[in-house]
Parts: sequence; structure tokens; C-alpha cells
Amino acid sequence: MNKNNEAITPRNVDFAKWYTDIVRAAHLADYSSVKGCIVIEPNGYAIWEKMQQILDQEFKKTGHMNCQMPLLIPENLLQKETDLINGFAPEVAWVTEGGQKKLEDKLCIRPTSETLFCDYYATHIKSYRDLPKLYNQWCNVLRWEKETRPFLRSREFLWQEGHTAHATEIEAKKETNQMMEIYHWFHNEILAIPSIRGIKTEKEKFSGAEYTLTNEALMYNGVALQSGTSHYFGQKFSKAYQVKFTNKDNEEEYVYQTSWGTTTRMIGGLIMVHSDDYGLVLPPKIAPKQVVIIPIGDDSEVKNIAESYQQQLQNNEISAYIDNSNKSPGYKFAEAEVNGIPIRIEIGKRDLENNIITIVRRDTRKKSTINIDINIVNYISNLLEIIQKDMYEKAKSRRDELTFEAHNMNDIKKILETQPGFIHAMWCGDARCEEKIKEIQGCKSRCILENEKKIDNCCVCCGKEAKYHVVWGIQY
Amino acid sequence: MNKNNEAITPRNVDFAKWYTDIVRAAHLADYSSVKGCIVIEPNGYAIWEKMQQILDQEFKKTGHMNCQMPLLIPENLLQKETDLINGFAPEVAWVTEGGQKKLEDKLCIRPTSETLFCDYYATHIKSYRDLPKLYNQWCNVLRWEKETRPFLRSREFLWQEGHTAHATEIEAKKETNQMMEIYHWFHNEILAIPSIRGIKTEKEKFSGAEYTLTNEALMYNGVALQSGTSHYFGQKFSKAYQVKFTNKDNEEEYVYQTSWGTTTRMIGGLIMVHSDDYGLVLPPKIAPKQVVIIPIGDDSEVKNIAESYQQQLQNNEISAYIDNSNKSPGYKFAEAEVNGIPIRIEIGKRDLENNIITIVRRDTRKKSTINIDINIVNYISNLLEIIQKDMYEKAKSRRDELTFEAHNMNDIKKILETQPGFIHAMWCGDARCEEKIKEIQGCKSRCILENEKKIDNCCVCCGKEAKYHVVWGIQY
Repeated sequence: MNKNNEAITPRNVDFAKWYTDIVRAAHLADYSSVKGCIVIEPNGYAIWEKMQQILDQEFKKTGHMNCQMPLLIPENLLQKETDLINGFAPEVAWVTEGGQKKLEDKLCIRPTSETLFCDYYATHIKSYRDLPKLYNQWCNVLRWEKETRPFLRSREFLWQEGHTAHATEIEAKKETNQMMEIYHWFHNEILAIPSIRGIKTEKEKFSGAEYTLTNEALMYNGVALQSGTSHYFGQKFSKAYQVKFTNKDNEEEYVYQTSWGTTTRMIGGLIMVHSDDYGLVLPPKIAPKQVVIIPIGDDSEVKNIAESYQQQLQNNEISAYIDNSNKSPGYKFAEAEVNGIPIRIEIGKRDLENNIITIVRRDTRKKSTINIDINIVNYISNLLEIIQKDMYEKAKSRRDELTFEAHNMNDIKKILETQPGFIHAMWCGDARCEEKIKEIQGCKSRCILENEKKIDNCCVCCGKEAKYHVVWGIQY
Repeated sequence: MNKNNEAITPRNVDFAKWYTDIVRAAHLADYSSVKGCIVIEPNGYAIWEKMQQILDQEFKKTGHMNCQMPLLIPENLLQKETDLINGFAPEVAWVTEGGQKKLEDKLCIRPTSETLFCDYYATHIKSYRDLPKLYNQWCNVLRWEKETRPFLRSREFLWQEGHTAHATEIEAKKETNQMMEIYHWFHNEILAIPSIRGIKTEKEKFSGAEYTLTNEALMYNGVALQSGTSHYFGQKFSKAYQVKFTNKDNEEEYVYQTSWGTTTRMIGGLIMVHSDDYGLVLPPKIAPKQVVIIPIGDDSEVKNIAESYQQQLQNNEISAYIDNSNKSPGYKFAEAEVNGIPIRIEIGKRDLENNIITIVRRDTRKKSTINIDINIVNYISNLLEIIQKDMYEKAKSRRDELTFEAHNMNDIKKILETQPGFIHAMWCGDARCEEKIKEIQGCKSRCILENEKKIDNCCVCCGKEAKYHVVWGIQY
């Protein structure tokens, strides 16, 4: 009956195959004729639109404004900040011909836009009165990845990049924190993805940043996904790009900068945390369509109730729609399931004779019958909240189940041989130890937890004095 | 006092300079270090966001869904439709290097995405049950223009491009019309730009289209601006890209396609129709900020009233804000003026003693005083409506004033020597006549009006039988 479901490889058989099967079956994205680039299909793009809407509201509430910088960066502009160019050089694409002529100076397609914002700020910031500049842009970027997977790693992706300039170090650091808190809130509260946040090690931080804050989520298979980063640049970029201002004491000073971003990769995270062998499962707060109403048969009473429910729910800002398509009820049920609609309402003539309708939760797949006289808005609002909470709790249990402590290198090996996850272990701060840990199946430091208790006094690798409580893991 | 205003070249002295002065003074956009590309600054981008929001709602109401196609197009894919590649070849940019290697096949940055949508549809449409496909995307495109002007012509611009596939010619043509009606409505009702719509001549239609519908607006200086186009492709693209479906009679058939688009150029149109020597003037329905409240002095009653007004207006979906910045009232007045905020409310202690406040309309710059006990929401809502209507009427008077009839070639010459505008004249349909008319200062056919009365029986150029009532004009 349901071709889509049949085609989904079970998650426990082949996680990677399961993932791409979900992406395809739920019509989120497809490969394109352009190597390494995907087509984001309407079901996938609707999730991105909802992400944009919620995040953008938070950005605006905190005083940020959107703008749009050019897609292309001249080579000489890119080269001003050495760390940045070194970090991105291997993965940029170059435009060398335009208007049927070879260009004198080649142009790179933006892999990120620090350079362009700095270039703009350098001419638009003069005095402390012009600060802070709190700009963000929603756009596409390109990084020439070799291996690609829909949403997780593709040459082109969509993101938002905030770039701010401040008069003081304190203010810029506060901004770096604030944006990380928004990302963390967004993952926990909206995406129902329990995340941890902390600071990246020197080795893992963004090229050109003084430090990088990161939000890290754990997928169902125990692999970690970086899910939002916020960078403090200090004056590194402002010195390279001469972004100066006259401070209150009438002295010339370089601005303090930050940048922060989240990408369409979050859609990949949503899938890998919540979905199951029947298809996509979406938390109600991010689901573009929250409720599908499926009338069974042609009965006019069935139709009337369906329409009345739709109207009542929509009037109360619940995204509900009637599936009036020409397909069989069974097909519609399966489609709603594979597409991850949080609640399905089935209305049939026989049920109505008993004054009941059927409600199916997508997350648990549990059916229940309720009386048709119930206040449908209250019932559904309440159920959406329960689903949101339950999905978070379920994801948290899984995350906790896959969270380990390691007290020596052998512990790390054993954990990774059995089941990867978040591995808490103490670290001395020496990059050589970090490198040795990475030799174990590519296990990287995810982040340093700053206010977490020590679990050992010695570094998990060298045994010297431990300075940091670090979470390690295999990354996407 | 107001540096911004002083720097605006009067419109009647130098229209082109006036235009770029407005763009700069209202902080809508700025040139960037990337030749031919602009930075859209927050004030400009906020207008684009509002345009997106309103248009997107209409697109969704009419059943369209958003998606995202890749930025890059492989050369061989682009070349399948000959008319399209011939039309765009001179103005595309090519990526030839990626990931530090020379690419085997170069990739073009999309100048438009017909090819990518066709490529996607070819693999995703199988049966009439898969139709119609009503997709749209909001994205950036690149065309290697030689001369550039902010919003009007720049190498990169933002737009939306709808691409639809249908089972029948009738349905596709209906779609082409429907989208043109939305653009026309948007210009007239939202942007307060009185527009005419019609069909492009063969010479002026989109490369690859069977026909192109266009919405045409007239700027204050009498120059015409193409403002939204909707193309009917018939089966031209579907044959080139093999987009086939099985129809209800179980026969294989090529789909019927359309595409339609509007761009950030509309911001340029808004400026050139409504603005004046004091800065930007925005119709209330597109103004991101509709009302600015300026408290004069530090008085607590002044503050309370300002806050109460802001709250009341915001609660009634009027975008109002208090300018609490550290600047002088005079500076704030001038800033609100140059930025085109439709209504300014000034609240001062002395006025309050007389129980009045001052209201200033941006469009007419007229001040009036009203009693503080008035219902502010009703008053402002009503005034916003009046402003919207008055701005439309004013623009329409100007348009009508610059609309002419020509009965022979000499008429066209004379009109263009004195004052360009929309020139109505009959045409035989021969491209050679169109070419001859273009020799007069580059005067092009804007569109054919299909249901307009004949104004002559003979072609304005050759004197042979006239077939079409055409509007001609100088274009941006």
C-alpha cells in the first residue's frame, strides 16, 4: 500500500542509507545534475522557512537587522586576513570568466562573508555613535566539498550569518554569548534536540576567530553534529581590514567583532535525531504542517466536520489542512506518516455513528479515539505540546544513553568500538594529546564545558594535570 | 541641520544623480568593492523583506510552494535550449576552478533557472497526477552587465522566479495570466504605482518564451520600467529537456510550462515614482516602518504618551516605533523624512500643555495638530489609508500627464524631444517598423494592449494596416 515506507532501509540496518531514504521518501531534497549540489524540495524548504521565521524573529528582537552582501569576493579582498584564507582556500570556487571575457582578477563565490562585512564596515563606521552594527544575512554559500550528503554536506548550502561590530570587548563577548544562547534555545525548545554548548579548542575553532562557541547535538547513531557556532574575533579582522572608529575619548580604535551562523544542516540534524523507520518525524514547533485531517469517504457530515475542525484549528494558529486529494485513505495515512505530520485526524462515517473520531500521533504512532463533541482546539493544542515535550525527552534519553565518561585512552577505544556517543574526558590542553585522541577513529573534541565539574585530575591521554572538561565524539 | 537632505541633488536638476543620492541618503544600498555588485543595506533590505512577505502570501494562496535549486548550472545543461543560451550567453559568469583544481566542465552562475527546473521536472513528473507543479524560489541571480546602477541594473540581484508545469495549454496560459494579475495588483495596490500590462512583441519577449506578459510602470522622469513579467513557454522547454507525462488517455505528452518573476529592481521603481528632493517617500503598505514617534525633551508625560501610542499602534498591526536615540529632535525629523517614514508624530511638552500633538505626513510634508484625546489608532489607520490612496493618485496624475498619442513618426520624435513618457501608437506588427521606431532615441515597444481601442487604422511607421495598439517608451 505504501510504496514510500517500503523503500526506507531500517535505521538499525544501515543508518546512512536510512538517512538518505528519509530525505527522498519525505521529498525533502534530491540530488541535482550539478555535482555536489542538491535541490531543496518544497517539503524540505518549508522546514527551512519555518526555521528562518523563528530565528529571524529572535534576531530582530535582539536588535539585529538583515542586509545582503555580494555573492562574489575579489581575490585580493579575501587575502587580507591570512588565517581565513588559509582555512578556506582549499574549498572555494572561482569565477574566472564573465560577459564572454577572461577576468583580470578572479572572484571567489563566498564561502562565508567576514571579508565583505569588514570591507563595508571599514567605510561605514566612523564614530562610537555608529556602533554597534548588528547585521545579519540569509543567503547561499559555496564550499567545494569532495563528499556530499543532502543537508549535511553539500557544496552549496543556505544559512544565516550574523556579523557585528562593537565599541568594546565586553559588548562583543556578550553578543557572542547571546547568539549562542539563542541557538541553544532554538535547538532545545523548537527542534526538541537536547544540545550541549561550550567552547571549541584552538584546533577546532573557526579560522580567524579568537574563540568559537559551539552548540553540539548527538544524532540517534551517536555521531555528533555541530549545530550553530558563534565566534568572537576580537580585533583580528578589524586590524586586517582597517575597521576603525573614534571612541568617546576621541581616540582611534579598532572595532571588536563577532560572527555567528546556522545552516540548512539543521534539517539533517532534525532527521537524524527524531525520525524512524516509517519516515520523517517532526516536532510540532518546527513542523510546517502540524495537523492533517483525512476525511474517509464522501459523506457530507464527514466533510462538514473536517472543514469545521480545519477552520477552528487555523483560527487558533494551528497549521491544519484537509487532505482532499484523489488518493485512498490508506495512501493518505502513509503519506502523512512518511512526511512527519505530527497529528493525523481520521474522520469516517462509521466512527461518526458512534460519535467518535480517530487521532494518531506521528511520534508514537499511537491511535486514540475521542468524542466528536470535544473542544478540538484545546485537545489538539494540548496534544501538540505533549508531543513536543515527549520528543525532547525521548531524544534526551537517547543522548544520555549514549553519553559516556572516559578516564584513559583505553576507555575511549572501547566506547568507540561498541557505540560512539558524547565522551566526557579531562584534557591537559596540549594539542598533541588532542591529536592522539583523534587517531582513535577520528574522535575529535566537540567542545570544552566551562562550568562542568572535573571528572579526573589528570589528562585522559598524557596523565598530566587536566585543565579542561571536554566532550569528545565522532563528527559529521 | 540635516546633512542628508542638503546632499540630495534636486530631481529636476539631474534625475540620475538625484536617484543615487536618495539610495545613499536613505541608506538603501551602497556600492561594494565587488565591481557591479551592491550591498543592500538594512533600510533597503527591509523593503525587500516586506515585498517578499506580501508576494509570497499571494503565491501560497494560489497554491505555489517554495523550493531551492542550485546556484550553478553545468554548461551542457544550459545549452539544451538554444534560444535561452543565445539570449543569456553574453551575460553569464563562469566558474572554472573549484577546490584548487581546474574544472573539467565549467559551471555558469544562474542568470535564471528554467534549465534547472526542467531538469528536476524531467525526473519528477511521470503522470498527470503529478501535475500541476507550482514551484517558486527566492534567490540571487547573476548577469554580467556592463553599466550598473543600484537596484536598477547590477550584476547580482535578488528575485523570485516561479516555474510551473501543467497538463494542458489552457491551464498553463491561465497561470501565466494569474501571476501577471498578482504583479499588477501588487504594483497598483501595494506599491501605489499605477501600471499598465500587456503582451511583449516578438522582439522584446523573453528568450525561449512563446509569449511574455509584462507589467510596465512609468517613472517620474517619463522613463518606463519593466516591473514583473510572466512567460508562457508552451512545450518549448519541455521538448528540449524531455519533460513528459502520461496523460489521462494514457498517452505520453510534453508538459506546458510557465515562468514569472519580480526583482529587487522594484525598489528602484518605488524610488523613481514617489520620492522627492527631501528623500525617500514610501507608500504605507510597503513601508517597513509606518510611524515614527519623536518625543521632544525629557518630560515624563511626553514619554508616557509616546509609549502608550507606540503600544496602541503596534497592537493594531501598525508598525510604529519611538526614536529614542541620542540625537536632536531636528535631526530625528530630518532622518525620518529622508528615510521615507509615512507618518511622524511629534510630542512636545509645550504642545501637551495645550492638549495637542503634531502629526506630519511624509508624502505632502504637511503638519497638523490633533487633540491628544483622539483615538490614535483610528486616526493613524485612516491617515495611512489616505496617504496610500493619495500617493497612488499623485503617481497616476503624473503618469497620465506623461502619456501621449502618436499618429506618425514625427509625433514620436517631438514627444521624445520634449518629454519622454508612455507613447500610444498603432503598429502593423512588422519588426522592421519596430526597429525604425527604436532608432528614435532608443524608443522601444513596452507592450501590446490587447483590449484597447484603435487610435488609428494605420501603422505609425509604415502607414500599412495597423494590427496592434502598442505603448512605446524609453526604458531603463
